[in-house]
Amino acid sequence: MDNFADRLIKATEEKGNPCVVGLDPRIDQMPQFILDRTGSMQESVRSSINAYHRLIIDGISDMVSCVKLQSSFYEQYGLGGIQAFYDTIEYSKKLGMLTIVDGKRNDISFSAAAYANAYLGRTIIFDKEEPIVNADCLTVSAYLGHDGIEPFFDACKAYGKGIFILVKTSNAGSLDFQDLTLNNGSKLYNKSAEFVNEYAEKLLGERGYSSIGAVVGATFPEAARDLRKSMPKSIFLVPGYGTQGGKAASVAECFNKDGLGAVVTATRSITYGLDPSIKNEASIKDEIRSRTENMIKDISQAMKERGMG
Amino acid sequence: MDNFADRLIKATEEKGNPCVVGLDPRIDQMPQFILDRTGSMQESVRSSINAYHRLIIDGISDMVSCVKLQSSFYEQYGLGGIQAFYDTIEYSKKLGMLTIVDGKRNDISFSAAAYANAYLGRTIIFDKEEPIVNADCLTVSAYLGHDGIEPFFDACKAYGKGIFILVKTSNAGSLDFQDLTLNNGSKLYNKSAEFVNEYAEKLLGERGYSSIGAVVGATFPEAARDLRKSMPKSIFLVPGYGTQGGKAASVAECFNKDGLGAVVTATRSITYGLDPSIKNEASIKDEIRSRTENMIKDISQAMKERGMG
Repeated sequence: MDNFADRLIKATEEKGNPCVVGLDPRIDQMPQFILDRTGSMQESVRSSINAYHRLIIDGISDMVSCVKLQSSFYEQYGLGGIQAFYDTIEYSKKLGMLTIVDGKRNDISFSAAAYANAYLGRTIIFDKEEPIVNADCLTVSAYLGHDGIEPFFDACKAYGKGIFILVKTSNAGSLDFQDLTLNNGSKLYNKSAEFVNEYAEKLLGERGYSSIGAVVGATFPEAARDLRKSMPKSIFLVPGYGTQGGKAASVAECFNKDGLGAVVTATRSITYGLDPSIKNEASIKDEIRSRTENMIKDISQAMKERGMG
Repeated sequence: MDNFADRLIKATEEKGNPCVVGLDPRIDQMPQFILDRTGSMQESVRSSINAYHRLIIDGISDMVSCVKLQSSFYEQYGLGGIQAFYDTIEYSKKLGMLTIVDGKRNDISFSAAAYANAYLGRTIIFDKEEPIVNADCLTVSAYLGHDGIEPFFDACKAYGKGIFILVKTSNAGSLDFQDLTLNNGSKLYNKSAEFVNEYAEKLLGERGYSSIGAVVGATFPEAARDLRKSMPKSIFLVPGYGTQGGKAASVAECFNKDGLGAVVTATRSITYGLDPSIKNEASIKDEIRSRTENMIKDISQAMKERGMG
């Protein structure tokens, strides 16, 4: 089974950029003419989300390597939302994209193993091993410690998958816990980084990067610079670019000098807030492509200014 | 909308004990004659889980006030598992039980609000507000800080629901982060407790307890004693009793002198590892009732020894 880090690096190199587009279904913010309300409520939820997501995926699959699905937006719609989650994963993979589930899952022991089965590995169902979501990677939280992370690590190793462990997130509230100072003078996020690095070293690919990555926000450039040094082998999943205010120059702190080591996500700034006068699918696709192109240019420019890529 | 803490206290007083039974579907460990494999794989998953859970719920609904559903075990089975999750919630409520979703969900801002909609509140679907899972409470993680917790707090307030925030969990790995010493000499779990207490004070019920609770494991009695003092208004959700090795005497540390302030969960020790020679539903129900009765007696005895209840 190919190592996830190798697969991710290959995919970003083929596309020539480290950008990731988020697919967070918010039906009330989708172009209304896209919605398909011919079935039951749950069928309509599923087909409306799928219609919009397929349009986006069709638009961007030749431009970026990965999509990121935020679990909460699917779960909030009930069964139709969950079906659209499975459908979106399947359609993205069919078009050759890697899939990141932003589920921030966490538990211990058998419960953590069940999440790993669900999102990365396989579940034994009536004596047969079945893939379930079968995404390429998953975001996880480490507050529960090593017996919370090991089941995910094992699944990454067995199935060529990856995890991104929450280290320093992009939001204001990240200061509340992540920036607490420990009795050795370091921050809690430094300790999280050390924890990530220990697992990262144990699952390296041929390109020198690990399938055990970290979530590091684009909104705190100094922390990012620090964390880049303490987790040299981990790929960073970088949220906060775009709507959340992270600038391309801050994002650039998350890369290594080789121009690798991070993927950068944007969601709302790519997929929502479209001009309501746009009334046909081709124009939506054009607009999404144009926004994605702008993001790619912005990030690439900032990386060049730092002598990368 | 009645306050969740008041509803929970009333329910535990009616049953005369603070015990909670976990419903974690593990099909390979269920009595095999229960399984219904007449439909498609996913239909069989759903009906097999439902068959076993209904038997358990029928057995215990007059004995304990709450069931706890661990999300991961449902998610690992795919769509049929998720349907069984909704079904189990619905059936438990129908039989008058309160439902705790052990999802350890966490995110920020709109994403956290979407989880709150999914599990506690309602989602706007095509201009109509719809309840989705509509559980009574949810476990959440606070590593992301205040903008990760506020959307859940708001839902608790608006819908009479509750959350249990992870503070000190029952596993060995809880030492890795939760027991880190901060530069002020306190532990990280003390800081988490302080954070919980601030929110708890803002959502008190008539009985003096808050709908903002904490997860505090039964395996670290000293930490529990300390945390009981620093979060006087929060109800503790106490895992770790039974299979994980937590003893009733440790569990008793999680209660206040009024005999209130905690609910205690057990899962595997109640629902799995049944004698394979048991071959009919009535005997399974008897065995589950007998195990639940033993747990109730054990916890009640330890509470009495500490002069409570």
